[in-house]
Amino acid sequence: MSTDSLHVQIPKAEVLKFCEACMQSAGANKDHGRQLSEVLFAADYRGHFSHGLNRLPMYVRDIQAKITEKDGEPQILKESAGTAWVDGKNLLGPVVGNFCMDLAIKKAKDAGIGWVVAKGSNHYGIAGWYSLRALDQGLMGISMTNTSPLSAPTRSKEAVLGTNPMSFSAPGKDGDSFVLDMATTTVALGKIEMQKRKNEKMPLGWGQGADGVSSEDPRDVTDRGGCLQPLGGPEITGGYKGYGLSALVEIFCGILGGAHYGPNVRKWMSTQQEADLGQMFAAINPACFCDGFEDRLSDFMGMLRGLDPAEADKPVLVAGDPERQHMAKVDKDGGITYHKNLITSMNELAAELKVTPMKLL
Amino acid sequence: MSTDSLHVQIPKAEVLKFCEACMQSAGANKDHGRQLSEVLFAADYRGHFSHGLNRLPMYVRDIQAKITEKDGEPQILKESAGTAWVDGKNLLGPVVGNFCMDLAIKKAKDAGIGWVVAKGSNHYGIAGWYSLRALDQGLMGISMTNTSPLSAPTRSKEAVLGTNPMSFSAPGKDGDSFVLDMATTTVALGKIEMQKRKNEKMPLGWGQGADGVSSEDPRDVTDRGGCLQPLGGPEITGGYKGYGLSALVEIFCGILGGAHYGPNVRKWMSTQQEADLGQMFAAINPACFCDGFEDRLSDFMGMLRGLDPAEADKPVLVAGDPERQHMAKVDKDGGITYHKNLITSMNELAAELKVTPMKLL
Repeated sequence: MSTDSLHVQIPKAEVLKFCEACMQSAGANKDHGRQLSEVLFAADYRGHFSHGLNRLPMYVRDIQAKITEKDGEPQILKESAGTAWVDGKNLLGPVVGNFCMDLAIKKAKDAGIGWVVAKGSNHYGIAGWYSLRALDQGLMGISMTNTSPLSAPTRSKEAVLGTNPMSFSAPGKDGDSFVLDMATTTVALGKIEMQKRKNEKMPLGWGQGADGVSSEDPRDVTDRGGCLQPLGGPEITGGYKGYGLSALVEIFCGILGGAHYGPNVRKWMSTQQEADLGQMFAAINPACFCDGFEDRLSDFMGMLRGLDPAEADKPVLVAGDPERQHMAKVDKDGGITYHKNLITSMNELAAELKVTPMKLL
Repeated sequence: MSTDSLHVQIPKAEVLKFCEACMQSAGANKDHGRQLSEVLFAADYRGHFSHGLNRLPMYVRDIQAKITEKDGEPQILKESAGTAWVDGKNLLGPVVGNFCMDLAIKKAKDAGIGWVVAKGSNHYGIAGWYSLRALDQGLMGISMTNTSPLSAPTRSKEAVLGTNPMSFSAPGKDGDSFVLDMATTTVALGKIEMQKRKNEKMPLGWGQGADGVSSEDPRDVTDRGGCLQPLGGPEITGGYKGYGLSALVEIFCGILGGAHYGPNVRKWMSTQQEADLGQMFAAINPACFCDGFEDRLSDFMGMLRGLDPAEADKPVLVAGDPERQHMAKVDKDGGITYHKNLITSMNELAAELKVTPMKLL
């Protein structure tokens, strides 16, 4: 895609530099701001625009309002050969997440596996960032986080669970990899908001009305007290499995970590209280199992990609392929393509924080 | 439910005794036969009839045909503080599964977590059996297995992945627990066969035709070359997430264990070659994280069960509740309720194996 009147392109380095400058101006420790910026940049680079620059103002506000700590270090509260429990000390999510995943990686190198759970964390960006961190070391990575309540358990009218994402990465041959990074709801709220803006119906299974019944009208979710549905949609099409997975994320994160959980997690975009999110991070060393893991994984992924597709122009993909395609496009274009409205709001943020606005390509 | 002309009731002890006698008559090691019988019995007791007595003839055939080994011991091939790789030696699935989960439990007690992967295994019954085994020790349990190809990756016309189930158990207070045990397809094949028998449509998202398109006609799946769809159904309602989870199970099991994987797993009900299934078993010690895990989990589950339901007669449930309700019913009835057709075929098996048939209640 070349740019049009609605979009602009910005070089990768500009995005990263801008995030760092904003966080520093807001008062965050320089290294912490850099860690956050890397995750936001990675989200946009990988094509997950909901979790990139779009979220920067939220982190800036949390630091400005002193709802998130601007300096300090996560602390290990309990430790065994294969596990650790960490207090994130209410630091920026990526600071907590990187600390925990690095600890899990160290344990995986010693004990074959490391399983680390944090309490007292904040929004940590894309879950994939952390599982990819294990991948960089030739390990498999897992990460999950609880989030603000937006989704209803099967049969319930009330939203008490988050989109509760889970990510899993595994290394293939020659830099190829399997990278699953998914919410346990059918879709994120943003997708429903987009259908509303386009004045289009949403497919059954995305969301439900205030009466707890699956709806095709996005306004039932956005304006009339409804909410997201778990992966699988209504009960008849397996929604109770998505609900079960979402509860599993909550158990691994909020319950195991002793953080906020379920309806106790603060409301989405609220900056009135500490988030105290629970998050889990695991690294597993494939070398502790059957030799040749990367070869087998690449063989498996090659088989999947080579399957006969139902529609000729829609090839079968493997988790991570859409992101790889997006990164390749960004590299070819020389920059990330953003909607002009987002850049306008970033320029306003720049003015407020007295930071140099991003230069277009 | 009291019995009707189509159903009979059989005391729990009779079911267990009958399975053991059949396996012994088929030639299996007595202890191995007992281990298998416990898992089949548990499936029926918990209400998962597809995985109970219904499957007994398959295990008997596998032993008779010497496709499954009737005696021997699983072997640890590699070990670290938190992990082990095990060769199941082509023994009965529950023999391999119990061995691996007990090893994972031991490691979890020492290192906080144990993650064990087996190759060379066979059908192991309900995945929940193994995660529940960890629960008995106050630990969280996880188990997954790959299975025969029955499901198509998103966009594909071909079935190359199994129903690839995953189970997760966690202990609450006073014996309460969270027990998730789910296939990563929307439904099992049996549910589609039942719609066909009733001459009813199936909901979109259960299966697809040979053209790779979601279908409402169960015959497209059972008779015309179609197959199951992953949890989420078609791409637009998140089927690619179910596909990703199914692939994740394959990576943790077949790929990590060096067993058969994907389309290489033998066809469903084939007894022409060794299954060589891959399976994973993990135990995690909640005491290695924030104290009071069981209290928080019970609080969480109580909150979920107390939610306002969309339909007054369908209360919100927690994973494990339907099985608990079924077990309570069996205990009240004094036996398990079976369809007469199943018992007729069990009586034929009894005659063939020269075993005493089950006595009705």
